Amino acid sequence: MAGGEKKLWGGRFEKPSADITERLSASIHFDARLYRHDIRGSIAHANMLAKTGIISPAERDAIVAGLREIEREIDAGTFRFERSREDIHMNIEAALTERIGEPGRKLHTARSRNDQVALDTRLYLRDAIDEIDARLARLITLLSDLAERHIDIVMPGYTHLQVAQPVRFSQHLLAHAWALTRDRRRLAFARESANELPLGAGALAGVNYPTDREMVRDELGFAGITPNSMDTVSDRDFALDFLYCAAALGMHLSRFCEELVLWSSAEFNFVRLADGVTTGSSIMPQKRNPDLAELIRGKSGRLYGNLIGLLATLKGLPLAYNRDMQEDKEPLFDSADTVTLALEGMIEMLATMTVNADVMRAALYRNFSTATDLADYLAKKGVPFREAHEITGRVVAHCEKNGIDFFALSADALAKISPAFGPDAAALLSPETSPERKVSAGGTARESVLRQITALRRLVDAPTHG
Amino acid sequence: MAGGEKKLWGGRFEKPSADITERLSASIHFDARLYRHDIRGSIAHANMLAKTGIISPAERDAIVAGLREIEREIDAGTFRFERSREDIHMNIEAALTERIGEPGRKLHTARSRNDQVALDTRLYLRDAIDEIDARLARLITLLSDLAERHIDIVMPGYTHLQVAQPVRFSQHLLAHAWALTRDRRRLAFARESANELPLGAGALAGVNYPTDREMVRDELGFAGITPNSMDTVSDRDFALDFLYCAAALGMHLSRFCEELVLWSSAEFNFVRLADGVTTGSSIMPQKRNPDLAELIRGKSGRLYGNLIGLLATLKGLPLAYNRDMQEDKEPLFDSADTVTLALEGMIEMLATMTVNADVMRAALYRNFSTATDLADYLAKKGVPFREAHEITGRVVAHCEKNGIDFFALSADALAKISPAFGPDAAALLSPETSPERKVSAGGTARESVLRQITALRRLVDAPTHG
Amino acid sequence: MAGGEKKLWGGRFEKPSADITERLSASIHFDARLYRHDIRGSIAHANMLAKTGIISPAERDAIVAGLREIEREIDAGTFRFERSREDIHMNIEAALTERIGEPGRKLHTARSRNDQVALDTRLYLRDAIDEIDARLARLITLLSDLAERHIDIVMPGYTHLQVAQPVRFSQHLLAHAWALTRDRRRLAFARESANELPLGAGALAGVNYPTDREMVRDELGFAGITPNSMDTVSDRDFALDFLYCAAALGMHLSRFCEELVLWSSAEFNFVRLADGVTTGSSIMPQKRNPDLAELIRGKSGRLYGNLIGLLATLKGLPLAYNRDMQEDKEPLFDSADTVTLALEGMIEMLATMTVNADVMRAALYRNFSTATDLADYLAKKGVPFREAHEITGRVVAHCEKNGIDFFALSADALAKISPAFGPDAAALLSPETSPERKVSAGGTARESVLRQITALRRLVDAPTHG
Amino acid sequence: MAGGEKKLWGGRFEKPSADITERLSASIHFDARLYRHDIRGSIAHANMLAKTGIISPAERDAIVAGLREIEREIDAGTFRFERSREDIHMNIEAALTERIGEPGRKLHTARSRNDQVALDTRLYLRDAIDEIDARLARLITLLSDLAERHIDIVMPGYTHLQVAQPVRFSQHLLAHAWALTRDRRRLAFARESANELPLGAGALAGVNYPTDREMVRDELGFAGITPNSMDTVSDRDFALDFLYCAAALGMHLSRFCEELVLWSSAEFNFVRLADGVTTGSSIMPQKRNPDLAELIRGKSGRLYGNLIGLLATLKGLPLAYNRDMQEDKEPLFDSADTVTLALEGMIEMLATMTVNADVMRAALYRNFSTATDLADYLAKKGVPFREAHEITGRVVAHCEKNGIDFFALSADALAKISPAFGPDAAALLSPETSPERKVSAGGTARESVLRQITALRRLVDAPTHG
Repeated sequence: MAGGEKKLWGGRFEKPSADITERLSASIHFDARLYRHDIRGSIAHANMLAKTGIISPAERDAIVAGLREIEREIDAGTFRFERSREDIHMNIEAALTERIGEPGRKLHTARSRNDQVALDTRLYLRDAIDEIDARLARLITLLSDLAERHIDIVMPGYTHLQVAQPVRFSQHLLAHAWALTRDRRRLAFARESANELPLGAGALAGVNYPTDREMVRDELGFAGITPNSMDTVSDRDFALDFLYCAAALGMHLSRFCEELVLWSSAEFNFVRLADGVTTGSSIMPQKRNPDLAELIRGKSGRLYGNLIGLLATLKGLPLAYNRDMQEDKEPLFDSADTVTLALEGMIEMLATMTVNADVMRAALYRNFSTATDLADYLAKKGVPFREAHEITGRVVAHCEKNGIDFFALSADALAKISPAFGPDAAALLSPETSPERKVSAGGTARESVLRQITALRRLVDAPTHG
Repeated sequence: MAGGEKKLWGGRFEKPSADITERLSASIHFDARLYRHDIRGSIAHANMLAKTGIISPAERDAIVAGLREIEREIDAGTFRFERSREDIHMNIEAALTERIGEPGRKLHTARSRNDQVALDTRLYLRDAIDEIDARLARLITLLSDLAERHIDIVMPGYTHLQVAQPVRFSQHLLAHAWALTRDRRRLAFARESANELPLGAGALAGVNYPTDREMVRDELGFAGITPNSMDTVSDRDFALDFLYCAAALGMHLSRFCEELVLWSSAEFNFVRLADGVTTGSSIMPQKRNPDLAELIRGKSGRLYGNLIGLLATLKGLPLAYNRDMQEDKEPLFDSADTVTLALEGMIEMLATMTVNADVMRAALYRNFSTATDLADYLAKKGVPFREAHEITGRVVAHCEKNGIDFFALSADALAKISPAFGPDAAALLSPETSPERKVSAGGTARESVLRQITALRRLVDAPTHG
Repeated sequence: MAGGEKKLWGGRFEKPSADITERLSASIHFDARLYRHDIRGSIAHANMLAKTGIISPAERDAIVAGLREIEREIDAGTFRFERSREDIHMNIEAALTERIGEPGRKLHTARSRNDQVALDTRLYLRDAIDEIDARLARLITLLSDLAERHIDIVMPGYTHLQVAQPVRFSQHLLAHAWALTRDRRRLAFARESANELPLGAGALAGVNYPTDREMVRDELGFAGITPNSMDTVSDRDFALDFLYCAAALGMHLSRFCEELVLWSSAEFNFVRLADGVTTGSSIMPQKRNPDLAELIRGKSGRLYGNLIGLLATLKGLPLAYNRDMQEDKEPLFDSADTVTLALEGMIEMLATMTVNADVMRAALYRNFSTATDLADYLAKKGVPFREAHEITGRVVAHCEKNGIDFFALSADALAKISPAFGPDAAALLSPETSPERKVSAGGTARESVLRQITALRRLVDAPTHG
Repeated sequence: MAGGEKKLWGGRFEKPSADITERLSASIHFDARLYRHDIRGSIAHANMLAKTGIISPAERDAIVAGLREIEREIDAGTFRFERSREDIHMNIEAALTERIGEPGRKLHTARSRNDQVALDTRLYLRDAIDEIDARLARLITLLSDLAERHIDIVMPGYTHLQVAQPVRFSQHLLAHAWALTRDRRRLAFARESANELPLGAGALAGVNYPTDREMVRDELGFAGITPNSMDTVSDRDFALDFLYCAAALGMHLSRFCEELVLWSSAEFNFVRLADGVTTGSSIMPQKRNPDLAELIRGKSGRLYGNLIGLLATLKGLPLAYNRDMQEDKEPLFDSADTVTLALEGMIEMLATMTVNADVMRAALYRNFSTATDLADYLAKKGVPFREAHEITGRVVAHCEKNGIDFFALSADALAKISPAFGPDAAALLSPETSPERKVSAGGTARESVLRQITALRRLVDAPTHG
């Protein structure tokens, strides 16, 4: 197969490629998915070539018709890809020339593979980002809806995985939702990075034709054109920006999934994941495992790997294009696919999850969850906070040492530990009413949570973000 | 030493910390540098506590005076830090209380270490970003100035480290400048990430006081307040966003430095680095090594490591605060310091570099650098580009096989290979005039390069970027 | 300061180093800790130079005495390091020459900084590995002792954080111990990597003297000498091998610490960590946070970062020495220090931990932990395992749907679901006796666990590992 | 499709898997390649079950025959995989039961998917390592042969990419060969890590049957059995060990390829890569790009990413099996495939490369490459090396300032700079004879290089390595 066909760049070569060269350098097995972007870009290029008189309108028409036909065949699965044609660009161009002859051999005028590759990747990425952003928006909406529905459920809030203070379950869900809004902001940034037209840079120096890059930009919907031809073919920042988005999002999802795993354990038992998102064991008949949550948690690894991999590949490369940069596409595709799937998995898990409100409520009566309320009570009465903290620490130690139920302490018992505790102090021990005392902006009081829901919905509905 | 002093959180603890606990958890050796940000934040907090009546004006005044005194002592190097006080926050608070007594014990009202740490880090980061951005702007300005000064130097442009097409040296320098503008854009994004006030989130649930977060926000110059208390203490996206900026910038610098190393080799000899930025060998008396360029190139590694390290640390952490997150500061400081130094090194190297224009010009006459001009000539005469490419490939092969000087080919010789070559074709062989033929936007023609310089200067002068 | 002193390599340089060059390239602030190794290596080198007649015995004596004096001063903290002397090697050599004159200027004969740096790093690493290995051995011994002490405690074993099958607590502890034996094996490998003498490679080509590398090897206790001079100064595999060890060990510790965090939560409550290894909260008086476990878990991030950072730095470097390679030492030191501290932290936590055996036992009666025993019962009676699995699945579903206590099912109840259940089946429901049924090699039966303890102790006592 | 078939673990589940669950959790698209290992493992398991009386000989025979048939069908491409059957294990088991009925339902007795997955992965990895090691051995042999053939070619040796000292081209090639021997050593280590039988651990606790793990171990050729059931199903060290090998090897290859890219540039022109391993440009007809070298250099990125990805995935996972660990296989396969291809590419490039000995020789006369010889000359005459270094530095400065050809300096000219230069000093200026003066062990003298070749060939021929 190697050398079975003359390469399009083969003019001066005497010997065909070694088979290993083709096996190492062929990218058609992964870049075939760029065909629509490639064809779209080629049509825009052909239109521009015709407009500027570099090719004739008839040639342009032949090219466009040929490309449309090829697109239909690929859509239909009837197009035959050849590995010896290396990549999607050469597969399409060679097929085009087979079909329409001479005009096909003109399509590559004023264009190099370097800027064509950059173009296709940017077009792909823009679409992928939009797909992911739509799922993010759905997930945020779902979390807002869940937060609203469960607004009155109070659960233990944790720091260091130790019960810290009572919080609304909604506040917890919204913490994740707000993190996801940052992912959308990052994605919007990455989209802007991708949203510049690279075509027209040629091999690295620009081209010898009076091309009209603005026309191509307009047809393809880019916000601008890249300003320097050498930078254009050397730059993979847009890929990195996206891979970083995916890594950061993966990190957020890994944290959320860690909690779903914890919450669905027998020990926490705060939620029950639906049958459809759990799986059994091949050996243990009783198991209902939160596999989906684990898989999404685990996938943060590959997202990190994709980012660091491309950073490493790019390190130390001189300008302008180097073939190492072909390594950008597989991590890009993998991260986009992974994140898309992971978000769908999150939506399914959360949409079908049952919340065990009673178990959460019972768990509030653990670890002296309202001790801070007691300290704050003292502080408000003028006890310096450090002293208040210490006194309350003694209350806790007293209960612990003597096996006394902290939440049932009487006003008298409190007063015996410190006379600063008045008769109204005991009421503060209730963990169920504690959230309402968190009156600061962004806190877990009901009003604050509802305001967050409104704000999130407004953000999701906003036309753009970033 | 362990337990030599009662911890501020020690109310209910019976036994002192093990020594290893202090050694592992103390952060004062690296977070001491946050003292100004810590004090600035505490003063803003005290002002707010006084304004909202939580402490008295007199208490506020005592706190502010005490903090100012401590700041002066740390500035002067006379303040004594204690490892047993764990971190900068506790060191300052404990010293304050030693000095001013009771009001010092009130400062921590309505505040937790979790949101205080987040505040200090964000304040630090905002400053660090501004420092780095200023250096980036200087470097871009320097590159623009160099590009202007050297506008008429033509050099070989490379792809795959093979001579590709002639380019202006200025175009090459500006390719790096444009990459750096993207770093500024990324930094502006990271600055926005950091630019929200976290204080007021309390431990994780908000606080039991009618605090005024907007007042604190205003005093500290933040653009907004964080919307959810649990997210506030769990979130380290702002740190990641910066670490990613630093990694991407490090990648850019590694590529530029790779070129400086190449260019200053005997084989390329395109530039001579100044004595001040090269070093000698302990054994080889003749050596002038581009150590600075190598060091900066090599430092991309630690910048990558810092990013992936924090991503790994955060992976799978449940909400809200976990002590693992203390691991954010060392990479943050290291990346900020590294990037700052690296940019200063770049500026020094480039500002003192000698350009060997003659060597560059001589190198143009290599590897048929104007072969594409020939192909384009044919294409313009109507030969389909693929055919033009092939014909030119034959010209190259002909010269190579017969040891003929490509650049001195006569019109006749060309015509013999293909009749499509007219008498005007031979003029296209000159690599020195080739750049002017790259008339496309962003190309390497003189006018295009000058336009880029203007655009870059305008960007640098713009009040904000992002 | 820059240029305040003539560099040892400065013969042909006209201008002093720029200040930024010194700030970027100086390593004395981190490589000063190599002084003992540097001096030890220099003494061995001097001995060899004297033995081979390159210097005189008297010169050797002066050198050795001078170096010993310097070592004493550094030990005592009275030696004055100069940043302008760049690194530990130059600081010591310059100080030596100041003291002993001419012989000091001969020490660098037949040696370059490239091989000297490699030597010092290898010597350091060998020591660091031994330190870490000793702590690993102690930790394994501690785990073996704890396993023996707690041999009769049965706890739930988890997969997917769902209760799976009862296991001995000892089996769980030993799972970690066995993982740590692999860390020792890896460390032994890394030690071998480091254990070759690099000195004698010169700058990169070998040296012009009839040196006796075997003599130096013998004095410094290396197992062999490096076989190729260019490889010797280019190679940092020994550093990577160690950084990988540290990363893998960090991963193991992160998993163990995750469990300590889980186990010490209110929800699991399987263990209580001692006061000395937990810390309180600045705001919540009741908190006892497993900070040490979290810190160690979090430190896996920096260990990963150090590994990937050096891998990235080395990527694409041509032979032989490049200054980028100076970036090897900080991650090396940091990983060694981190791992050493982390192991000490683990030992402290485990040695002082209280095990809540009753809570573990109660937790056994969750999630049908003996369902597999039931399936195995059927399989042993000839029911194909897949069918047995399905029948037992129905038992579980039956209990769940009807709120029946699985562990108290009677023989009759079982028989009603499947006649294959005989009267002896109900006895298998007891989770406390289940471990004894795991009779396969390496299983959780008492005998098997005791055998593991014996095997581990034998491994720890073995003179070498690897 | 989801739920179109009852899962083998579905006994207690009421609802089928959600489609997204299948899409996220199915692994059949990548683990199908494990079919031979899976079948081999299942046959060994069946043999053991029969030997220990758990199944009958007839059942064993049916199982083995069924599995063989399935293997033949998969070999032939006629087997039909179902995504709803999740993975290769379930696909094979379900197909087996369809064919042979009841005995198929017994195969999973005394086995869980957890230990089966670990087994298959280890079997695969052992094979993959052997494949890679064979290629490494071939590459080392090739380098030894090339070194022998080119033993008399002298080239500039570089440090900091500055000409340092003359070296044999062979010495340079062997530097890479020696690095590759370390890769073999690491691979041997990783093979040992993989070479323990995990089967028999059950879900995590061992199994309720008197299995004979030693018998299975023997049949499958493992060196030992894993000692602890929980560790067995939690452990992915063997995967990490290999991924680290691949990353380190990738780093070595990236350095070698960087040199091939440099050497085949017009500026160095030390070698010419064959047509078969270079490619052309779609736009520049003259280009011969070292794509293969660039691709291999670039692939270090994905190898690093695969390592760090799995490290990140494993971080913080509690024991025992978690579904996150399914993420081990794709990086494993990718790294094994990548490294295999990369080694084949290296072999092809080197085997077909032309060495431009004359160009190398000419390049020796650059950058005073024998200055160190001059310094050593003085040192041997008793001038302290530091003084000798400085005097030679002045010789260099003198030539540089006055444009004098260093290599043609007369004895008189030398003596004028320092009287220590005798009449025999000028002969040392010749870079072509310089390597013979590097007489130290491992140096670049002819004898030393030949000894290395012998040693390398002996290593390659040795039956085992490690």
